[in-house]
Amino acid sequence: MIIVMQRDADEEKIQHVIERVEGKGLEAVLLRGEKRNVIAAIGDKREIPTDYWLAIPGVEKTVPILSKYKLASREISPHTTPVRIDGNTVGEKALAIIAGPCTVESMEQTLAAAESVRKSGAVAIRGGAYKPRSSPYSFRGLEKEGLEILAESRRLTGLPVVTEVLCPEDVEMVAQYADVLQVGARNMQNYSLLDELGKYDRPVLIKRGIAATVEELLLAAEYILRSATAEVILCLRGIRTFEEQTRFTLSIGALAHLKQVTHLPVIVDPSHAAGERSLVFPLAKAAIAAGADGLLVEVHPDPENAYVDGAQSLTPEGFDQLMKELRPVARAVGREM
Amino acid sequence: MIIVMQRDADEEKIQHVIERVEGKGLEAVLLRGEKRNVIAAIGDKREIPTDYWLAIPGVEKTVPILSKYKLASREISPHTTPVRIDGNTVGEKALAIIAGPCTVESMEQTLAAAESVRKSGAVAIRGGAYKPRSSPYSFRGLEKEGLEILAESRRLTGLPVVTEVLCPEDVEMVAQYADVLQVGARNMQNYSLLDELGKYDRPVLIKRGIAATVEELLLAAEYILRSATAEVILCLRGIRTFEEQTRFTLSIGALAHLKQVTHLPVIVDPSHAAGERSLVFPLAKAAIAAGADGLLVEVHPDPENAYVDGAQSLTPEGFDQLMKELRPVARAVGREM
Amino acid sequence: MIIVMQRDADEEKIQHVIERVEGKGLEAVLLRGEKRNVIAAIGDKREIPTDYWLAIPGVEKTVPILSKYKLASREISPHTTPVRIDGNTVGEKALAIIAGPCTVESMEQTLAAAESVRKSGAVAIRGGAYKPRSSPYSFRGLEKEGLEILAESRRLTGLPVVTEVLCPEDVEMVAQYADVLQVGARNMQNYSLLDELGKYDRPVLIKRGIAATVEELLLAAEYILRSATAEVILCLRGIRTFEEQTRFTLSIGALAHLKQVTHLPVIVDPSHAAGERSLVFPLAKAAIAAGADGLLVEVHPDPENAYVDGAQSLTPEGFDQLMKELRPVARAVGREM
Amino acid sequence: MIIVMQRDADEEKIQHVIERVEGKGLEAVLLRGEKRNVIAAIGDKREIPTDYWLAIPGVEKTVPILSKYKLASREISPHTTPVRIDGNTVGEKALAIIAGPCTVESMEQTLAAAESVRKSGAVAIRGGAYKPRSSPYSFRGLEKEGLEILAESRRLTGLPVVTEVLCPEDVEMVAQYADVLQVGARNMQNYSLLDELGKYDRPVLIKRGIAATVEELLLAAEYILRSATAEVILCLRGIRTFEEQTRFTLSIGALAHLKQVTHLPVIVDPSHAAGERSLVFPLAKAAIAAGADGLLVEVHPDPENAYVDGAQSLTPEGFDQLMKELRPVARAVGREM
Repeated sequence: MIIVMQRDADEEKIQHVIERVEGKGLEAVLLRGEKRNVIAAIGDKREIPTDYWLAIPGVEKTVPILSKYKLASREISPHTTPVRIDGNTVGEKALAIIAGPCTVESMEQTLAAAESVRKSGAVAIRGGAYKPRSSPYSFRGLEKEGLEILAESRRLTGLPVVTEVLCPEDVEMVAQYADVLQVGARNMQNYSLLDELGKYDRPVLIKRGIAATVEELLLAAEYILRSATAEVILCLRGIRTFEEQTRFTLSIGALAHLKQVTHLPVIVDPSHAAGERSLVFPLAKAAIAAGADGLLVEVHPDPENAYVDGAQSLTPEGFDQLMKELRPVARAVGREM
Repeated sequence: MIIVMQRDADEEKIQHVIERVEGKGLEAVLLRGEKRNVIAAIGDKREIPTDYWLAIPGVEKTVPILSKYKLASREISPHTTPVRIDGNTVGEKALAIIAGPCTVESMEQTLAAAESVRKSGAVAIRGGAYKPRSSPYSFRGLEKEGLEILAESRRLTGLPVVTEVLCPEDVEMVAQYADVLQVGARNMQNYSLLDELGKYDRPVLIKRGIAATVEELLLAAEYILRSATAEVILCLRGIRTFEEQTRFTLSIGALAHLKQVTHLPVIVDPSHAAGERSLVFPLAKAAIAAGADGLLVEVHPDPENAYVDGAQSLTPEGFDQLMKELRPVARAVGREM
Repeated sequence: MIIVMQRDADEEKIQHVIERVEGKGLEAVLLRGEKRNVIAAIGDKREIPTDYWLAIPGVEKTVPILSKYKLASREISPHTTPVRIDGNTVGEKALAIIAGPCTVESMEQTLAAAESVRKSGAVAIRGGAYKPRSSPYSFRGLEKEGLEILAESRRLTGLPVVTEVLCPEDVEMVAQYADVLQVGARNMQNYSLLDELGKYDRPVLIKRGIAATVEELLLAAEYILRSATAEVILCLRGIRTFEEQTRFTLSIGALAHLKQVTHLPVIVDPSHAAGERSLVFPLAKAAIAAGADGLLVEVHPDPENAYVDGAQSLTPEGFDQLMKELRPVARAVGREM
Repeated sequence: MIIVMQRDADEEKIQHVIERVEGKGLEAVLLRGEKRNVIAAIGDKREIPTDYWLAIPGVEKTVPILSKYKLASREISPHTTPVRIDGNTVGEKALAIIAGPCTVESMEQTLAAAESVRKSGAVAIRGGAYKPRSSPYSFRGLEKEGLEILAESRRLTGLPVVTEVLCPEDVEMVAQYADVLQVGARNMQNYSLLDELGKYDRPVLIKRGIAATVEELLLAAEYILRSATAEVILCLRGIRTFEEQTRFTLSIGALAHLKQVTHLPVIVDPSHAAGERSLVFPLAKAAIAAGADGLLVEVHPDPENAYVDGAQSLTPEGFDQLMKELRPVARAVGREM
């Protein structure tokens, strides 16, 4: 931690900061400059929050040297830590494509989606039984019935299930049905939920919040990683910017950066970033080319009549075409499907 | 709803959209243009989500005419609907200043804060017993003990309590202690929590998410307003932008706009927007000048030793000074303290 | 400057960085940490760009201690440096309100605007003769004829003229007519223009670019401040964010921060931030309450028929009303009109 | 154009708007709704700015149906319009990779860069003789001498030259040396410069401003396209968002959208978006995979000693490696190098 003192901070304030630094078990080195004095606090105490230092009189700003996250860092493991979903893994050479409808609407719809995406090469089905909706007037999912449909679909097709859980009290039930528990973007900083998920022996897929920094995403993962299970997949789905042409702005740079700093597998949801079917293709290809470990794609047997997100859902034929077009891109970057 | 057809959408697609519009009980008017055909869907069906229309083949984009929220709209009530907190109200001529520590740390600290802010003119104390923290390694609140401290502080000072609730299962307990239940920015779209809050006879203070649109904030309020209670205070605390000089960017324009479109009282949290004590003053004055119905201010008897947010917390003397400086600003815009 | 080395940077790389630091005439202090080594470069060499250090092998990141700007800094002068416009000043106790039409359309329109804003208390008229327009099909100003109208309006009303200049080769001519030369937001980083403006003995008003950081704004001012003249007024007019309800997001926090770090006067353009007449009032009041030294307001005798920006232009009556409402706000923060 | 009336706009105001619509030669269709009345203005008059309608009393908002740009639109041409640079083209099956140093520093450095990038397969050299710099204390280019070095480098290597021009008065001279005239991101809305460029028979490469919308970028191109020459290449280099991990946020969605709506070739500058050498690779691959027609890459024979942007410049070996890695990605999406 680097602590920059205010221009007019006097000797007494400087000594006071040094005492506080040493009081925390860190070594303090005072660097006297022409215009500013700086105190370097040496040692690894990432759990002391920045505002601890900022609140000391005379401190102008602080600059962390180490990232706040530890367990999610590549310092822990130089290789990507694969997450097993049934017979497949996310984070190894083979890309993991997870596909399915935004929302579970019926047995028929879910089964049709599952069968088609399995045939095209998906390793798991996605589908929401509990849906977070901006408007209270929107359809919010079939809930328990939806989970049962997903389980039946798995029984019939063999495809494992990725599904979202919205609040701590639902975790136990959803965990009975799901192979991977998904935390949606709106819940990335729902820490009660993250705490609860850490108690279950089930991989967790965390979507980046639309205004979350990369560090906040990794700290959210850290909530899970403290527990015994510690199987986390990160998922990027676009951030909110001034850009109007897509629903969200897919930050390919964040993907590339994450692949450098974390050992967790990172996948991309091109459907929510795009907001529109025709843009899903280029975004999916870009994600694979930039090093994503997989994709989360919305596919619906009848997008026009989808309850939610029809405009961005691929048809089964569209998804099959996407998979065909992704194969050479994957090979081009040393991956396979 | 205005539905713009794609440039190459043929007659069949146009007729199909018209059928879908009429099938929803809306009147369809086809407007043929040189370059694009447009279908106006007339009638008030705000509950049909935009993506319903976007998913129909041949549709290029849709433009809603009406806002998605209803109950939060000024169409419902031309005047601000005041929310009563104990003997005071938020949303009438007198400004409601709510102040106190970020976090309840001890009986002594809380009481010191409560007594000082009451003396300076605050109408309620704020203080967190449950704290959402980006890092799992940070202090997360005294929980139940914190609630008891707040209740005791109310007994001793008479100041009502505003405190945050993080998840649905905590609502019942927090409601036993709190006069106003606060939903934090990270939880603005935690719909399980909003649903639960709608069941209690207690005003709810909802903070705008750092990347939430004004419409999303009003839709979050709408979750509560559907219930019998329907007492909601909105609170702005800054959005996340590229601006680096403050912790968040306080959008004064959003405040001004909200005062035009909603009948709910709107207050401002200058402390979280500023991130730094010295900036709290100008932000607080700006908020009052632009029409805020009150403020939520962080005050701590000993900021240097605050567990959380010390750098942005005012001392009791600082808060007293702020109140003195706000008084003439309030009067200048026809309000009182 | 703090230089953080990569985790795996070896001794040779560290020594190489130290040599580079010393080679620039700075003192190097090596701080060895558990996880990272850090080199503090001590001395005031703000002219060395950050990327000089970043390009050295083994460097992970650099953290500047000092701001990049010097002449615009409050370190130069503890008080605001007032800028004289004819008989008035910007940056002293009396607020400077500059008002007028977006665009000079005719002698009649300009004179009507000038007379009305002078009567209501404006210290200068604003009005564009050269207009930057996003679309090549839009009206781009009366150019030289517009300047002559402005000059005639000054002769008749006594109001000094603030007008925009778009490119270096126009500076000489515009300087013959204008009392203050305005650099628009789109041109804030047009350095050829800034260089040229530094050659003239005329105050310059620089508008913050819609995506410029505060530091970039101050560095733009620094281009002018290097010259003999060195009279600069900064103007905030909103940044581009995801916020949809106003044309731009007025960052009150940037205003408050600027008043702390620079000695240059700072004014606010509430009209461009608002994009809509009714929002100009609260934004103007907020700006004054937060410490702005003045305002730049669009006023048009007949907004409905304005060539540009009619929706956000006040009528003369509206402006007179605004001035009346601002007076008590100004007094409340120790200023006068 | 769809014009939405305010809730309380009376019959007189509605009739007045209809008159204004018809007065502009458009057909007006009044749609009466339950909560709002809407007037559709039918006809193609994109040159009427939105604020013309917004300024009419009683108008709440307007919704354009057609894009503001015409000549840049795919409605003009269903295929990408290739731009010829010497013997190669941008916008056909073969990707156009343009590479070279950020800044021309010397004959030796420029020639070394040119020879190496040519050998690796670049179709043109990039290099700045005039550099826009945020700080007035930074190196600003060799100017005329730099142009001469570029010309000599072309003579010796045969590689055509892409170089930036900063202001209208420099266009004539730069056009004597350059094969493609580049407009930098800071100058995207420097309309005096765009106007001047339209007079020369030389292709123009326009970089998207860091806060420019896609429509504003296309309107900037439209300034050039009105002239006889009309050869424009668009270049994306990242937008400014809250994302901290890369210098700018490369919006892959904007690229994909542009490929749908414009017939102009679109290339990507991964170097400025990344800000760091190691991130250039994944961003470059993503751009190609998503459909970019080429790249603009910073390459320097000795990045550590580069005057500008050393941290994001590739070495000649790095660039050669990049080209090798891009080849299979290009083939995977049906392109070649």
